[in-house]
This record gives sequence, structure tokens and C-alpha cells, in this order.
Amino acid sequence: MTSMVAGINQIIKKNGLPKQVLPEIFSRKDIFPDLHLLDGPLKVYRSQSSFDWRKLRLIVEDEESWKLRYKVWNFMENNPLFFRSHETLPLDVQRHQATKRVYTLYNEKFYGLEEYMERPDLSGKYSSAMISYDPNVSVKLSLAFGMFPNTIRTLGSDRTLDIVNENLNAENAGSFALTEIAHGSNARGMRTTATFEKETKTFVLNTPDFEAAKCWVGNLGKTCTHAIVYAQLYTPDGKCHGLNAFVVPIRDKKTLLAFPGVVVGDLGEKIALNGVDNGFVLFNNYKIPKDYMLSKTGDVDDAGNFISQFKDPKKRMGKSLGALSGGRVGICEIASTYGVKAITIATRYAAARQQFGPEDSNVEYPVIEYQAQQYRMLPHLAAVYAVQFFSTFIGKIYGDMTMKLLMGEDMATAGMEIHALSSVGKPICAWTVRDVIQECREACGGHGYLKCARLGDLRNENDANCTYEGENNILIQQGSNFLINTRAKGWSAFGEVSPLGSVDFLKNGEEIKKLKWSWTQTNVAMKPENLLTIFNWICVHLLERTYDKVKQLQASGQSQFDIRNNSQVFYAINLAKAYGHRSLFEVFYQKVQSLTPSPERDVLSKLLSLYGANVIVNNYIGTLYEGSFVEMGLNVCEILQSGILGILPILKLEAVTLVDAIAPPDFIINSPLGMSDGRIYDHLKSVIYQTPGTFERPEWWKDISYRDYIVKSNL
Amino acid sequence: MTSMVAGINQIIKKNGLPKQVLPEIFSRKDIFPDLHLLDGPLKVYRSQSSFDWRKLRLIVEDEESWKLRYKVWNFMENNPLFFRSHETLPLDVQRHQATKRVYTLYNEKFYGLEEYMERPDLSGKYSSAMISYDPNVSVKLSLAFGMFPNTIRTLGSDRTLDIVNENLNAENAGSFALTEIAHGSNARGMRTTATFEKETKTFVLNTPDFEAAKCWVGNLGKTCTHAIVYAQLYTPDGKCHGLNAFVVPIRDKKTLLAFPGVVVGDLGEKIALNGVDNGFVLFNNYKIPKDYMLSKTGDVDDAGNFISQFKDPKKRMGKSLGALSGGRVGICEIASTYGVKAITIATRYAAARQQFGPEDSNVEYPVIEYQAQQYRMLPHLAAVYAVQFFSTFIGKIYGDMTMKLLMGEDMATAGMEIHALSSVGKPICAWTVRDVIQECREACGGHGYLKCARLGDLRNENDANCTYEGENNILIQQGSNFLINTRAKGWSAFGEVSPLGSVDFLKNGEEIKKLKWSWTQTNVAMKPENLLTIFNWICVHLLERTYDKVKQLQASGQSQFDIRNNSQVFYAINLAKAYGHRSLFEVFYQKVQSLTPSPERDVLSKLLSLYGANVIVNNYIGTLYEGSFVEMGLNVCEILQSGILGILPILKLEAVTLVDAIAPPDFIINSPLGMSDGRIYDHLKSVIYQTPGTFERPEWWKDISYRDYIVKSNL
Ligand SMILES: Cc1cc2nc3c(=O)[nH]c(=O)nc-3n(C[C@H](O)[C@H](O)[C@H](O)COP(=O)(O)OP(=O)(O)OC[C@H]3O[C@@H](n4cnc5c(N)ncnc54)[C@H](O)[C@@H]3O)c2cc1C
Ligand SMILES: Cc1cc2nc3c(=O)[nH]c(=O)nc-3n(C[C@H](O)[C@H](O)[C@H](O)COP(=O)(O)OP(=O)(O)OC[C@H]3O[C@@H](n4cnc5c(N)ncnc54)[C@H](O)[C@@H]3O)c2cc1C
Repeated sequence: MTSMVAGINQIIKKNGLPKQVLPEIFSRKDIFPDLHLLDGPLKVYRSQSSFDWRKLRLIVEDEESWKLRYKVWNFMENNPLFFRSHETLPLDVQRHQATKRVYTLYNEKFYGLEEYMERPDLSGKYSSAMISYDPNVSVKLSLAFGMFPNTIRTLGSDRTLDIVNENLNAENAGSFALTEIAHGSNARGMRTTATFEKETKTFVLNTPDFEAAKCWVGNLGKTCTHAIVYAQLYTPDGKCHGLNAFVVPIRDKKTLLAFPGVVVGDLGEKIALNGVDNGFVLFNNYKIPKDYMLSKTGDVDDAGNFISQFKDPKKRMGKSLGALSGGRVGICEIASTYGVKAITIATRYAAARQQFGPEDSNVEYPVIEYQAQQYRMLPHLAAVYAVQFFSTFIGKIYGDMTMKLLMGEDMATAGMEIHALSSVGKPICAWTVRDVIQECREACGGHGYLKCARLGDLRNENDANCTYEGENNILIQQGSNFLINTRAKGWSAFGEVSPLGSVDFLKNGEEIKKLKWSWTQTNVAMKPENLLTIFNWICVHLLERTYDKVKQLQASGQSQFDIRNNSQVFYAINLAKAYGHRSLFEVFYQKVQSLTPSPERDVLSKLLSLYGANVIVNNYIGTLYEGSFVEMGLNVCEILQSGILGILPILKLEAVTLVDAIAPPDFIINSPLGMSDGRIYDHLKSVIYQTPGTFERPEWWKDISYRDYIVKSNL
Repeated sequence: MTSMVAGINQIIKKNGLPKQVLPEIFSRKDIFPDLHLLDGPLKVYRSQSSFDWRKLRLIVEDEESWKLRYKVWNFMENNPLFFRSHETLPLDVQRHQATKRVYTLYNEKFYGLEEYMERPDLSGKYSSAMISYDPNVSVKLSLAFGMFPNTIRTLGSDRTLDIVNENLNAENAGSFALTEIAHGSNARGMRTTATFEKETKTFVLNTPDFEAAKCWVGNLGKTCTHAIVYAQLYTPDGKCHGLNAFVVPIRDKKTLLAFPGVVVGDLGEKIALNGVDNGFVLFNNYKIPKDYMLSKTGDVDDAGNFISQFKDPKKRMGKSLGALSGGRVGICEIASTYGVKAITIATRYAAARQQFGPEDSNVEYPVIEYQAQQYRMLPHLAAVYAVQFFSTFIGKIYGDMTMKLLMGEDMATAGMEIHALSSVGKPICAWTVRDVIQECREACGGHGYLKCARLGDLRNENDANCTYEGENNILIQQGSNFLINTRAKGWSAFGEVSPLGSVDFLKNGEEIKKLKWSWTQTNVAMKPENLLTIFNWICVHLLERTYDKVKQLQASGQSQFDIRNNSQVFYAINLAKAYGHRSLFEVFYQKVQSLTPSPERDVLSKLLSLYGANVIVNNYIGTLYEGSFVEMGLNVCEILQSGILGILPILKLEAVTLVDAIAPPDFIINSPLGMSDGRIYDHLKSVIYQTPGTFERPEWWKDISYRDYIVKSNL
């Protein structure tokens, strides 16, 4: 097929105008629709922007990524099972729908093992495509057919391969059961037991009480057949060998009835993600074959002896829980997906919604024309770009690392660094998007409070990102620990622990420490490279300050446990957040650096400055003064503020187009406030008028005029 | 009736031990249950606190207020119509339930006109009692039987009194229709018309198009019989006289069917408050009697001439919309109610939930023992107290003012001040509680994500507080306008515009401006009076800075409209917020000052310091340096931080008891995580096990094992 674009490219190539060569993929009108032709209130903004949104789209994500996304989205749009409704459906219907959609999607094998081997980084984009449609489907699918078999592959042996093969054909469906009612972050304290019985060569699973019930397990409530269960392993000699993982059959594959000895139930309604059946389970002398232990990190022989290559039980547990690290990387992409949707809806709404205008005139301005509204939207738009670049970056390095591990390379150092980086990156992405969505919700005024606007759903869905895959506040401590422990070995040690480059700059900590603010002109201070210097200094300062605090607590004789807990507030927490903020900024910075000069690079560069300056103004001004980075009399707050105020009206003209570059199609946006034509009232009317019952008198109308149900109290 | 307490009081009085006299009301075991006798994890914290929670309870709100609250709550608990369920009910059922509850409560006349005349300030507490049970009931009731008749009373004439009298007997039910699809904040731009027709002595209502449909109107969707409608008034000469209010019959009182000419419908699902039927309406040559114009601010005579005592149409509209100011005051109380519930749940959970403990020990600590968790809870607990004191204060002065107005006093100056104060107070309360709820949600980890934990509901409900009764970001401009306009007349002008005392301090602006930070010791800097000085300086500095900006924009020749819009970000907005923060702090401060020395006063004083220091650290450190309030080298950030760190472990011991003093009963809390006995797992188990369907196989189980619904795509 030769499209028109391809044809033009041919001609252009011949005539030697390489600058105007348009990529072949631009002819894909699903991915690159003619937005500029759409009539409506966004047209004027689209015509004012300085760059080609299609080119930016390919800077944000590459062709393969967009193709994969649209493969999934187009399939959904063409299958009636994926129709969209604006109403809250009954809980059971939500689960039913999600389940059917999961099997239908899995059956399509859009992104299987083969695709994974070629482009492991696209796994996040595949999830993102599903999530932007509906996170329920993605969560259920990735637990049942991703995390479950992957954990068995990583931690299991040949004896559990059958289960993996069945899973590949959707003959079973898995879940991952770590959390208990009374133990979440503190996995070590879990109390489900697996006792080896020599005679029957089985493990006997027991749950001492409700508090030790496994809970929150996605797919466990109604639909899974198997679970990976973490339990305290006891050998016949009565010794406990800590948490180990087992594959545990939960329900009959055909009848879906739970096996005797398994009391399994549904956790009930949640704030969101109600298509996912999170469940709990209690075991009562429930026996599973010896082969079902995932034995890579530790095994039991027929005689009942525990064997492991890891002497230290903590290390063993670390290895066995290692399967979790990919989850954190995934959350960055999930958060990014939500952020993109929210900012798309709110930006388009702000450009379409008119309110007020100059006195004594009948003109009304789109609210995006107001400085106050610009400052509510544009820094968040910049933040969404930052999160998007970061999630793509960390997805890529995680994918690369996994590949190299499979090829047998030693990735221990990179593994440590990605552990630390994802432990700050996941919380920062989740929190950033939390704030993006909230502001978008409020910025859309009353209509933003409609359920069909979707901002409430997005908020409720992203909320879980702050908690699962490691509670944000607990997780972030992993980042500061890494920095403090490395710092204890001297600044130079950072040169050795950072193959991925996230903390490499700290090897120059001693010099960075001595830096001072040296920019009096706004446009100089706002340069990305100078903002990066500021972030570097902030990290060094907060690390030094926290390290001093730790030493001081050590000197006062506190235990390790107490030192860690008592150095959090204003110290380790701020340090970890700064590491996260700097990482997002730096990834964005490197991305811009990698581009050849172009209008797209220019606009990204402004967005980057806005992101950086705004993060500093809102979080670190006190730090800059407190650490004497700034000389007295120098009003750096004002310098950065005026930098931000200068960028707002420029980016206002680009905002709609910046959103076009990252937005999914209207079928996915599914909000009358955020459609690509910006015709907010037409879409609102259409949703409201077509909702069943809109104009009907309720069946219970008599309870308004004849109130026989009122029983007067005799209090 | 002589209770035991009363008897003891008698004896004590005789024996001259006045310090131990216990108020009679302590014998009310519903209001003052024996919390210290409850077995469970909270017992140890209750035994450690330094003060009597019952005494604090009476400091927070007086006897009458608590009695009214418990009258409502006890009635509900004893009426099966007010049973509680944890599941999301279908939309129609939510509306039905809310409607029946409204009529049942209204029938009880817990707080009618008589009670209002005696204690107008208790109107907020009455609403609060309902809201803490379920905001739907309160919103519907106060629109139907509060705002509707009150607006007619205020703006109407004798000709509309019949409607008010019918309303008193619940023979009609009202709503308040101002907002249109395309116009919210900008009321002046609304397009619904009311044209006077001489021949028929009627007003003919018309809605030009969907964009001009009245919308968001609570009770309009399904249940009201009448609406107050704001429309552009046209006289037969074709002249427009601006927005005026009319009482408009919507539905037949008996059949609940809409009248011909009225197209009325339901706006559909919202983020929350789904028991309230928010609706929209379009009029098509719909005639209403001339008498139905609310004619106090302007009238039309039989000949079709418009008559008004207000020459300036803007002033007339201001008067006619004046009915809205009470709403803002009400929101402060609503936000306070949500905040109390959220912090109660999260504090009790933090004291009951154990996680981690010293290495190599089996002890686990309640998470409130960790500094990080303390800093997530305690400043928010302090903020809830601040909001609660502020909402009580503003409710009181608003009630007083309304009474004086009724007695014919001229309250113009106080009216202006309360307008400004409520315009910053409402947003600050709504936003403060927004942040309280979000942190509480996250602080409860996974279980906080259960719907039955209620934190998601609270967040979704409070969310509306940011938007209705004046969109926060628009509203807050009223506060900064007031300050800037007064400042333009010189600092001394503040002495004349502040009968309520909220900006009186600014008359000393010139001196305050010269103040410098002068405290090197943490415990001195943390004293409430010194924190108040800091807030004073911040307000003065930001006012001066904003005023300068305005003058500068004026000098550059910008229009009034542009000046206002271009002085918002980093200037007017920060100023308005600071005015709000200072007001909350000052009301709290005055409250503490008014108390005689006692353990209750001591703990409140610490809470106050924590609130103030934390607001400053998180919002104004940059301002302090930027405005040179702080000399270089003085590390004020560290001073305040160490003050906060010092207070945390002290207030940790008081937190559970501080919450007891403000918490509603368990029936109202209705969250397994937040019950007064702290037995979180027992309550969780009970909720989960008793939810219908928990252990059942879904009816659609076959769709898991036999997947005949899958249609393979042929893409
Ligand atoms: C939607 C959803 C899906 C989930 N899916 C699964 C699943 O499929 N499988 C599974 O096994 N689990 C699942 N989980 C559970 C999830 O992993 C846990 O909720 C998470 O690990 C947090 O643990 P927790 O809830 O027990 O919080 P806790 O550990 O109890 O923490 C409670 C609070 O205490 C604080 N805290 C705890 N310790 C400290 C400390 N030392 N210092 C300071 N503060 C502290 C925390 O920060 C938090 O605010 C899911 C959860 C959710 C919400
Ligand atoms: C739950 C609920 C119940 C309600 N009940 C009622 C009711 O009973 N009766 C009724 O009449 N109404 C009701 N409303 C409507 C409510 O009063 C309006 O939503 C509110 O006034 C805000 O107006 P808007 O939604 O049109 O926002 P808009 O005015 O359109 O504002 C949209 C956005 O633009 C921004 N913006 C607008 N102008 C400017 C400017 N000049 N400078 C900077 N930014 C600007 C705003 O800050 C906001 O973020 C209700 C709303 C809700 C959510």
C-alpha cells in the first residue's frame, strides 16, 4: 500500500528536502487524525501552536509503542463486549464484565512472550493501553496471566512447569497472595503456615485466625483457580524457615467451587477497581503436594530437611520477594496513563469553557486565558510529561536488565540501583498524578464533578497506586537508605553503585556542596541545565543533612531501628523525595538534550523549565536558604516565580497541542469534557439525554406526596 | 431528675471543692460514654493522656450543641429507615432513601424557626449532625425547606407568603436554580429569560438553548415542586433589567409530573452525593403569575414598568444574590464535619494497627509510634481542630449578624467583612479538609481503600465543597479584592472596615512591616503569640507585595479586568490564602486565650503551635526569606522543624483522646477502622462476613471455564 504520505515522501526524497520528510506512519489516521480540521473551540488554539504535534507524539513514544496501543484500542472499539457506559454498574456485573473482557483480550495474544523477548519495554505500554481503557481489565489480566506464571518461572522448578503451561492456555488463572489482614508492609510478620508432612509428602497449610487470613489478593475473591501463597515454612523438626512461596490450588477449574479446607471469600467493595475481585482466604489443614513449593530460593527434601543456597534467611526472603520489583516499575506507567487522561480532559475543557470577559463587553474568554487557570493547568501538564518520560525510561532499563539477567549477566549492582530508583520513582509518580488529577477535577468546576467527566474515577483509581506494590511512605525509605548507606562509604562510592546513572552525580558531592546560586537573571536561572544544578545541590545538601542526623542519633546510642524511624521527618523523607524529583527532572532533561534543534525541542524545553522551577518553588525554597545555597538579599523566590509567570502565556498557546501529542483517542477518553473536538456542550447533552431515566418520574413518586412511611418518634 | 453526677456536684459544692465540679451533662452516657472502660488497643493511649476528654468536648462545642446533635443521632439510630449499609446502592434507590429520610427528619422539627431565633448559630450544628450521618439528607433538606423558603422570605413580598407557609408543612419542596450549563461563576452571563406580558400579567420563561438550561440544581432532578429561578428580566419595551429571581412551579404537587412548558431532567451520576437529584430545566414559553417575581430588589408594575430602589443594576444583582453568603459559612461547618470523621478513623486506626518492631523481637508497634506516621496524622488533627473552631466562630458571628439585620440594625460594614472572611474561609476549610482526608486515606494503607472504611466517600463528598457555593479559586479573589481595595485607602482604613476583627490588625501594617524574626530558641518561636506575629507579618508583606504589583500593572495601562487577572498567581492568591490561614490560626488562638489554665488548655495550646508552625513551614518559608523577615544565617526552617519534631511524641500520647473529644458516636462513624473500641479486625471481619455474597460462587462462573462468548477478531 502506498499512501499519500508515502508518495509525498518519495517526491520529497527525490527533490532533496530531507527536513520535510514525513514518517510513513503519519498516514495512519487512527494514530494521527486530522485534528486541525475539527470544528470547535479548540481550533483556534491548535492553529496557534508552534510545533507539529505528530512529531512530538513520536518523541514521546516510538512507532512500535503507538502501533501496539492502537492495536488494542481498535480491537476494543470493534468488539461490543467493550462498549462503554457512564453509570456505575452493580458490583457483580462489574466483575462479570471485567472477567469476560480479560479472557477475550488474553485470547488475542497482543503481546505475548515472543513480543516480550523482542521489546520487553513495551510490556508497560501494553498494560497502559488496557489501563487507559479500564484498569480492572489490566489488573486482572496481569495478575492471572502475568505475575502468576512469571513468579513460578522465576522462583519455581521443573516440577511446577505444568501449571505455567496450562496458564498459557488460560486453563487456570492465578493470583498473588502475600498480604494478610494484620500484616502488609511487614511481610516478615506474616502468620500463615506451611508445615511439611513427611508421611504424605505434602505441605499442610494453616491460617491461625482471621488476622492471618491472606487478603487483598486480586482475582482471589471470585475467579482464580490458583494462588501463589507466601507462608512461614515449618519442617517436621518444628523449625521455622521463614516466608516461602507455594502454588496453591484454590478452586476447581471446571466448577469454580473452592476446595475443602479452603475458605475463600470476597473482600467487598473498594474505593475503585471494583471489577477486580480482591479476596481473602483461610486454610484449614489444607494439603498441597510437595512439588508445589517454589523451590528456587529454598527447598525441602523428602526427609524433611530444609536446603537453601542462602544462609541468611533475610537474604532468602529478599530474593523470594524480588518478584515484586517489576510491579513498582509498572506503577509509574499506570500513573502516567491516568495523568495523561486527566490533563487531556482538563486542558481541553479549559480551552473550550468560556467564563467572564472584559467589563461592559459581551465577549467571554476561555478560562485558559486567565493566569490563575494557567498556573493550575500548565505545571501539571509539564508534570505529566515528566512522569511519562520517566516511566518510559524506567520501563526500558528494567526491560533491558531483565533480558540481561535471562542471558546470565550479573546485574546485582544495577538491580540495587533500580530497586532504589523505583522505590522513589513509584511514590513520586503516584503522588504527582494524584495532585494532577485533583487539580484537574477542581479546574473543571461543577461539570468536573459529574461521574461521566471521569476525573473522579481517575482519582479513585490512581489512589491505589499510593498503596499497593509497596505503601508509598514505607517504600520511599528504600531510596533514602540506599543513599545514606552509600554515603557512609564516602562520596566516591556513588561512582560504583550507579550503572544506570541515577546517583552517579553524587560522586562529586563534595564539590556540589560548595556551589552557590549564581544567576541574577530570570532567563538564565530558568535554563534547564541550571535547574539541574539546583536539583543536584538540593540532593547533596539533604543527603548530608540526613547523614549528619543519622550519625548524631547513632552517637546518642539509639538502635538501628530507632535511628531509621527517628530520622525520617524533615530528613530522610525529604531526601528521598528530592532524589525522586531530581530523577524525573533529569530523565526529562536528557530527553530534551537528545533532540536536534526543532520547534518540538523548544516547546519541550520550556515545559521542562516550568516543571523544574515549579517543583523547586513549591518544595525546596526553604532548603535553598536553609543550606545557604542562596546569599541573603538575592530574591530567588521572585526570580523563579517571574520565570514561571513568563512561561505561562507562551505555553497557554501550546497547551491544547501538547495534549494532542499524548492523548489517547476519544473512545478511550470517554469524557464529554475532554473529547478532541472540544464541543463540550454537545457531548454533555448527548450523555445526559441518553442516560436511561433522565426525564422519567421515579416509581416512588408517591412517597413525596403521600408520606405514610413516616413514623413520628416518641423520644 | 437528680442524677448521680448532680448529687455529687451538690456534695462537692457544699464541701467547697469547686475544681472538681463535674457538669451535670456528664451523666448523659450517650454524649459521654465510658470510653476508658472499653477493652481494646486504644485503652493504653486513653490511659496516657493528660486531660479529661469530656471537658475538652465542652470546650469544642457547648452543651446545647451536643444535645442537639445527639437528639438527631439518637432518633436516627432508633428508626429503621436510617439503617446503614456499606454497599453502593443503585442510583434510584439512593434517591428514594434520601427522600424518605428527608421527610421523616423534617417532620421531627428538631430545629425549627423557634430554635433558630434563640440560637441561630446552632443551625450549622444541626446540619452537621445530619451531614455526619449522610450529606445527601442534609443537602436535600436544607435546599427544600431552608434555602428555598429563606430566599422567598428575604427577597419576596406578601404575595409569595403562601408558598412559604405551604413549605413549612412540607406541602411543596423547593430548589434553587442559578447555574446554567454554560455559566456558573459568571452569573451575569446567564441567558434564561423572563419576559413580562402585560395582557396576561404573567412572566413568560424561556430557555434559548441547552447551554442556557438551568443545571446542577439540587432536588430539581426528580423531587421538587418549585424552584427559585434566576432569569434575565425583560419588560414589554424590550429592555433587559438583568438577573432577577422568580418562584417557578415545576411539578404538580400530587402527581409529581412536570407542567407543560417545563422540560426537566436529571443530571445523572456524580462523584458523590448521589442521593441528591441534581437536575436541569428548560422553559418553553412557560407562564408564571406576576406575583411570583421575588420583588424586594426590583418589581414590575401592571403597566410593565420596572421599578427598583437600586439604580445600579450590579448593586441590585449583588443584593439579589446576597442570599448566597450563608452557604459559604455553612460549607466551613460541612468541611469540619468531614474532617472530624476522617481524622477519627485514621487516628484510631494508627493507634490500633501494629506493623514492624525492633529487630529480632516479636514485639510490634502501633504505627502511630513511628515519627513518619505521627507527622502524617498530628498536623492534620491540629488542622481539624482549627477548622472546627473557625467554623463554629464564623457560624456564630453570621448568626448574630442575621439576627441584628432582622432587628433592623445596619450591618453593612460587618456584612462586607463577613463576605470577605467567608470567601477565604470557605476555600481554606474545604482545601484543608481535602488534604486531611487524602492523608488519612493513605495512612490507613490497604484497608483504607475499602469502601467500608468510608475515607473514599468522605473525599468524594468533600470534593464538592471546593466547587459549590462559589468555586474556591474564584471565591478567594473576593478576599484579596477586599484587602487590596482597603489598602488603597491607607493602612489606617483597616480600623474602620473590621467590626469582626479579622483584618483590624492591618491598621498597624506600617509597624508590622518592620518586624523581624527575633527568636533563636525553638520553644520561644513556637509560642502561639509569636506564631501569630509571624502570620501578621506574612499578611502585611503579601498585601504590600500584591498592592505594588497592582499599581505597577495600573501604571502600565492595563484595564481593571486585566489587572485583576494578571495579579493573581504568586500575588493575590497567596495573599488571600494567608488571610485565610491567619484567620483560622487567630480564632484558634483566641479560643485558647479565653480558657483558664488547665490540662485541656495546655494540650490545645500545643495543638495550636503545631498547626501554626506546620502551616508556616509548608507554605511560607520562602516568603519569610524573600521579604527579609529573617536575617541571613538564621536557620528558621530548622527552628520550626525542631519545634514540630518536639511536639509530635507528646501529642502522640494525646491523639486518641483528642479524637474522642470531637468524634461522633460509632453509629455515625460507621467504619470498621474507626470505632471507639479500636478493635479493627473484629469489625472488619464482621463487615466482610456479613456482606451478602461474600462466600458465594458468582452466577456467571461458567464464563470462566467455558468461554463461548469470545469472538476472535479478524483484524
Ligand atoms: C487495590 C489493592 C490491591 C491489592 N492487591 C494485592 C494482591 O493482589 N496481593 C497482595 O498480596 N496484596 C495486595 N494488596 C495489598 C497491598 O500490597 C498492601 O495494602 C500494601 O502492601 C500496604 O500494606 P498495608 O495495607 O498492610 O499497610 P500497613 O503496612 O499496615 O501500613 C499502614 C500505615 O502505617 C504506616 N507504617 C507502617 N509501618 C511504618 C513504619 N515503620 N514507619 C512509618 N509508618 C509506617 C504506613 O505508611 C501506612 O500508612 C492490594 C492492596 C490494594 C489497595
Ligand atoms: C454537587 C453540586 C451541587 C450544586 N448545586 C447547585 C444548586 O443547587 N443550584 C445551583 O444553581 N448551582 C448548583 N451547583 C453549581 C455550582 O454552584 C457551580 O458549579 C459553581 O458555581 C462553579 O461554577 P462552574 O461549575 O460553572 O465553574 P466555572 O465558572 O465554569 O469555572 C470553571 C473553571 O474555570 C475557572 N475560572 C472561571 N473564571 C475564571 C477567572 N476569571 N479567572 C480564573 N479562573 C477562572 C474556575 O476557577 C474553574 O476552575 C452545584 C454544583 C455541584 C458540584
